[in-house]
Amino acid sequence: MDKLYFACDYQEGAHPQVLQRLTTYNLQSSPGYGTDEHCEAARQKIREACGKPDAAVHFLVGGTQTNATVIDALLRPWQGVVAADTGHIAVHEAGAIEAGGHKVLTLPHRGGKLAAEDLQQYLAAYWQDASHEHMVMPAMVYISQPTEFGTLYSLAELEALREVCEQYHLPLYADGARLAYALACPQNDVSLRDLARLCDVFYIGGTKCGALFGEAVVVPEPELLPGFFTLMKQHGALLAKGFLLGLQFDALFSGGLYGEIGRHAQACADRLRGVLDELGYRQCYDSPTNQVFVVLPNEILDSLGQEVDFTSWEPADAAHTVVRFATSWATTPEAIEGLHAILRRYAPAGGRP
Amino acid sequence: MDKLYFACDYQEGAHPQVLQRLTTYNLQSSPGYGTDEHCEAARQKIREACGKPDAAVHFLVGGTQTNATVIDALLRPWQGVVAADTGHIAVHEAGAIEAGGHKVLTLPHRGGKLAAEDLQQYLAAYWQDASHEHMVMPAMVYISQPTEFGTLYSLAELEALREVCEQYHLPLYADGARLAYALACPQNDVSLRDLARLCDVFYIGGTKCGALFGEAVVVPEPELLPGFFTLMKQHGALLAKGFLLGLQFDALFSGGLYGEIGRHAQACADRLRGVLDELGYRQCYDSPTNQVFVVLPNEILDSLGQEVDFTSWEPADAAHTVVRFATSWATTPEAIEGLHAILRRYAPAGGRP
Amino acid sequence: MDKLYFACDYQEGAHPQVLQRLTTYNLQSSPGYGTDEHCEAARQKIREACGKPDAAVHFLVGGTQTNATVIDALLRPWQGVVAADTGHIAVHEAGAIEAGGHKVLTLPHRGGKLAAEDLQQYLAAYWQDASHEHMVMPAMVYISQPTEFGTLYSLAELEALREVCEQYHLPLYADGARLAYALACPQNDVSLRDLARLCDVFYIGGTKCGALFGEAVVVPEPELLPGFFTLMKQHGALLAKGFLLGLQFDALFSGGLYGEIGRHAQACADRLRGVLDELGYRQCYDSPTNQVFVVLPNEILDSLGQEVDFTSWEPADAAHTVVRFATSWATTPEAIEGLHAILRRYAPAGGRP
Amino acid sequence: MDKLYFACDYQEGAHPQVLQRLTTYNLQSSPGYGTDEHCEAARQKIREACGKPDAAVHFLVGGTQTNATVIDALLRPWQGVVAADTGHIAVHEAGAIEAGGHKVLTLPHRGGKLAAEDLQQYLAAYWQDASHEHMVMPAMVYISQPTEFGTLYSLAELEALREVCEQYHLPLYADGARLAYALACPQNDVSLRDLARLCDVFYIGGTKCGALFGEAVVVPEPELLPGFFTLMKQHGALLAKGFLLGLQFDALFSGGLYGEIGRHAQACADRLRGVLDELGYRQCYDSPTNQVFVVLPNEILDSLGQEVDFTSWEPADAAHTVVRFATSWATTPEAIEGLHAILRRYAPAGGRP
Repeated sequence: MDKLYFACDYQEGAHPQVLQRLTTYNLQSSPGYGTDEHCEAARQKIREACGKPDAAVHFLVGGTQTNATVIDALLRPWQGVVAADTGHIAVHEAGAIEAGGHKVLTLPHRGGKLAAEDLQQYLAAYWQDASHEHMVMPAMVYISQPTEFGTLYSLAELEALREVCEQYHLPLYADGARLAYALACPQNDVSLRDLARLCDVFYIGGTKCGALFGEAVVVPEPELLPGFFTLMKQHGALLAKGFLLGLQFDALFSGGLYGEIGRHAQACADRLRGVLDELGYRQCYDSPTNQVFVVLPNEILDSLGQEVDFTSWEPADAAHTVVRFATSWATTPEAIEGLHAILRRYAPAGGRP
Repeated sequence: MDKLYFACDYQEGAHPQVLQRLTTYNLQSSPGYGTDEHCEAARQKIREACGKPDAAVHFLVGGTQTNATVIDALLRPWQGVVAADTGHIAVHEAGAIEAGGHKVLTLPHRGGKLAAEDLQQYLAAYWQDASHEHMVMPAMVYISQPTEFGTLYSLAELEALREVCEQYHLPLYADGARLAYALACPQNDVSLRDLARLCDVFYIGGTKCGALFGEAVVVPEPELLPGFFTLMKQHGALLAKGFLLGLQFDALFSGGLYGEIGRHAQACADRLRGVLDELGYRQCYDSPTNQVFVVLPNEILDSLGQEVDFTSWEPADAAHTVVRFATSWATTPEAIEGLHAILRRYAPAGGRP
Repeated sequence: MDKLYFACDYQEGAHPQVLQRLTTYNLQSSPGYGTDEHCEAARQKIREACGKPDAAVHFLVGGTQTNATVIDALLRPWQGVVAADTGHIAVHEAGAIEAGGHKVLTLPHRGGKLAAEDLQQYLAAYWQDASHEHMVMPAMVYISQPTEFGTLYSLAELEALREVCEQYHLPLYADGARLAYALACPQNDVSLRDLARLCDVFYIGGTKCGALFGEAVVVPEPELLPGFFTLMKQHGALLAKGFLLGLQFDALFSGGLYGEIGRHAQACADRLRGVLDELGYRQCYDSPTNQVFVVLPNEILDSLGQEVDFTSWEPADAAHTVVRFATSWATTPEAIEGLHAILRRYAPAGGRP
Repeated sequence: MDKLYFACDYQEGAHPQVLQRLTTYNLQSSPGYGTDEHCEAARQKIREACGKPDAAVHFLVGGTQTNATVIDALLRPWQGVVAADTGHIAVHEAGAIEAGGHKVLTLPHRGGKLAAEDLQQYLAAYWQDASHEHMVMPAMVYISQPTEFGTLYSLAELEALREVCEQYHLPLYADGARLAYALACPQNDVSLRDLARLCDVFYIGGTKCGALFGEAVVVPEPELLPGFFTLMKQHGALLAKGFLLGLQFDALFSGGLYGEIGRHAQACADRLRGVLDELGYRQCYDSPTNQVFVVLPNEILDSLGQEVDFTSWEPADAAHTVVRFATSWATTPEAIEGLHAILRRYAPAGGRP
């Protein structure tokens, strides 16, 4: 049997409808840098989906690039960004934020999330510290929805964070690299409109959610980010053929495709979680979205890895490793059932066959 | 008639053979970040085309991003990059090089080019200046082939630059955003192998030469750029779906496609230059490649702009503007003839009808 | 005879009254970082001298540091600073501005100065350029008074610059490293009050004007520079023993000392200019302040350099060099007469003995 | 009685012998930027004290500036510096390291120190992590001797750190802002020669140890830091009147003054620790050097603060605060006895009177 691919949600090209759109317009001539009609159409659809008719919508190529550009736009040189210590910008972006001159100020995560009370305490302590002017000023908050652990901020949690942010005049920024998979999750109660109401900036992920590549930054109050076009160019984030991004997001936001992509991956992940439970595997992190985390004994990893491509997340203990399986728009029922068959063979003693 | 598009060489998607490749492999699963077989195949073809079997080949998304990443990799903090004052990095990259902490040290251009004797004089003067340690140290050289004016370094010119670079121990870096259009030009005597022999780093442009997007950085001596993968990530230049770049460059370097793309654009540009001569227009900059520059009276620009999309390059004098028409793989004979018909109507008095 | 020192205006310690002040308070305990009573007293005197009772006054250690910190405070990441191509920040600060991420946008100097009409033309062209959003936005103006060539902006010139700055909403920043020598110059018609009225930020030089070290940044409208204390710390420009700067500037602005220092150096420089004229030397750059520039034949430089320490400024032609002699508060009449005697021996044929 | 000052070790000017040196040479002319004979003499004395006749010695103005410049010199853009989470660069330098583009990679401190075993584990985990190329590469180690808590690395601890550094090819850098107070401590077994043998770069603090200002960076193998002069200039760390630094360090390293300054502060601190014990105060952090930390009830802080200037370090619990008293070369026996008398009045119940 062919190897199965569950390592991440960016292992294939684009959802066929997205690719079709690119193909249809491949020979049409468009102006550059996102000034074309496809970008404008996509912007309009995103504004409507967010309930923010005046929002600015900017299209960038990838997530690290987007985070670095937005954060650079929001901060002044003496300011930093607060994030959970598991936040993507704090760990896996190769220092892109620091390369822009800004410190990532980390707080211990709670299930991958930043808790409003932790943020509140940190900010209160900062402003009470007599030497706070010698320290980087916390001046914005970064969260991801879903988080790096696949977990979700509830609406109540997000509103609590927003309240602290308002109290301290900090813009709130949400990284939505996998936003489709949050929106489609039954446990989720945070809509696009909620994000647009509660965040000062957020982005709608394309790369991991059905596009070939691309992320859509939404700025409900556009005057918050003056000079953003030039800053995108400076960050190498201004695609010459911006229309490629417009075409893709126009497709993703046509006919409910973005929602459908999320629901497909969700169904696959739920099935996989059921399989793991059935077979007695120990899951962890309580991710309800398209990332599924399971604790495996180290001695099976090599052998399992011959049959399935997965991600080794982190050591669980000396003998076990946390492993991630991710589903996406591209996951097939056959792949899930193939994985089921393989996992049955590796099932822990006591796993129900 | 539909509007004609000659504003630049990145107004359409990808050459059909490139798009076909992406479509064929759209649902194949690949590992991320350029570690896949398509990237490896493309690297191999590029190494062969360059005659450098050990070269490192890195795939990035766009030109500004590539320049910023390569220059950041080559320089230490107290060092700067020497470029013609018309160099893309000096003018149209929104300060991306400075954002990385480095000064662009400009010398007056000669037809868009950096002259070896100017470079030699500048470097000699720098090192003789008693206060040179208070100034940014010139530590690499940036050129573009073809230049921003469409002109070409001859092999002799490139060898002369190389000699000065070696004398002062400066790496030489060539921006090949439009390299296909240089290689295909009859006046050109600089091959890919010459570039690989004379440059320490250069990139083979995809975005403007038939790809949807993408640039291939070639490093003949890979140990010159340690840590480049991480630096790409930091610069937001590491595409998650790196296989998209591998697929495209593999297609561009299969069956001579990259050469064919260049020759097609070259033929179109030559035809257009002939048309302009025939009609009595004044061309400028002496570009032999796919960019055609012509001096037009300001009063016709608005009207002409209704029918043809072109680029206003710079004021020529109070009453005239330099305008650029660019051809590409996507330019059709019909478009050229359409432009011919339009230009005949605007032809200067004395233009042969 | 001992060697004579005219290489620059920072070859000795502090004016005796400044050193005396440091000595008097050497064992007094003060709080750190400029929060002490000496700093406050100095600030008050500077505010009065500037006619700006609400101005913020910040004390930093040196000029390059001050320029880098102020410019970083005024610009956003996509913005640059306009300066004459001879401006100190453009040439002799080792890329400190670029290290902060900002491009120095240079215009050709006129006698070391930036002309209002040149600035106007540049800004108009920038905003009219269709691709200006791909270029660094000019967002502040840097001048030096006196300039690097010792020349002075007249009040009319400064007002003209200010007018252009206001038209384009650019803050105007003046580097006053040698401000004492401008203020004391008979040709000068720009007072401290004029600077405080016409500039958004400027600094009053201490290092070259009688202090051991130190520069006083004046911000007439303090809210222009939020977070400046933290930014100073970040730039390594916040002196732990800030009181040392307060003590020195308090001394410099007590009893007219700053004016006296300037007048002394001016008298010495005027005497030296007279000597050079008398002996038939060719002066250049028309500096009316404490820097005196003279064109000398290359063959006398080594020999002259045995007796006098001067600065080789730049080549004048293949056989001549521009040389600078600088006077200061520390220049003695004996040194001037000693230099007179030496220069008489080297005087050009035709020099009146 | 006058207020007593124990807030820090930089509340007065310079040790009288240092000030005397500055006064003696105040009117002597010297060349700029550290090229003078005083700097050379000081360098020679420091090389001898370190047992490194070929070491480079650079003089900078302050600690944050020195750390930022050295770290910028040692790292490439994709690399970061490992430090204890209490390290000065991680907390109290206003993001100066990040402003230079580098992440500070923190590990939990042990009494203010970085433990070799923690470093080893961290580095091993980094290199074993499959996605380490997406993370900032740990590429140097920062420690401070004494630490921010006044604690000391033993020679064994330093050698263990060195061994890990060598294993992973990381340069080791020691911040010696208070080095005089480490060297003079009876518990200390790390000499200047040990530091020069075990560190790749370290600095000998002047600002807090008897100088008006200034830090001396020692680089046992000078070729480790090419371009450092220019980098100092770029960082605003190159003092125009470099001779002021040379004069001060020459004085500090003449006649054993640096040692004497340390011993004086040590004796004062030891006496103060005895007083606190005698009076039943609860000390913390186990600092054996010139910083003395004591836990005080919050309700006495305001009143005590009227009589003594101290530093509130951090909350101990809801009702108590950790407070720091620092001694220095400038602390007088009278001040210690005055503090004794005051503290007796605030002594905890059960304090022996």
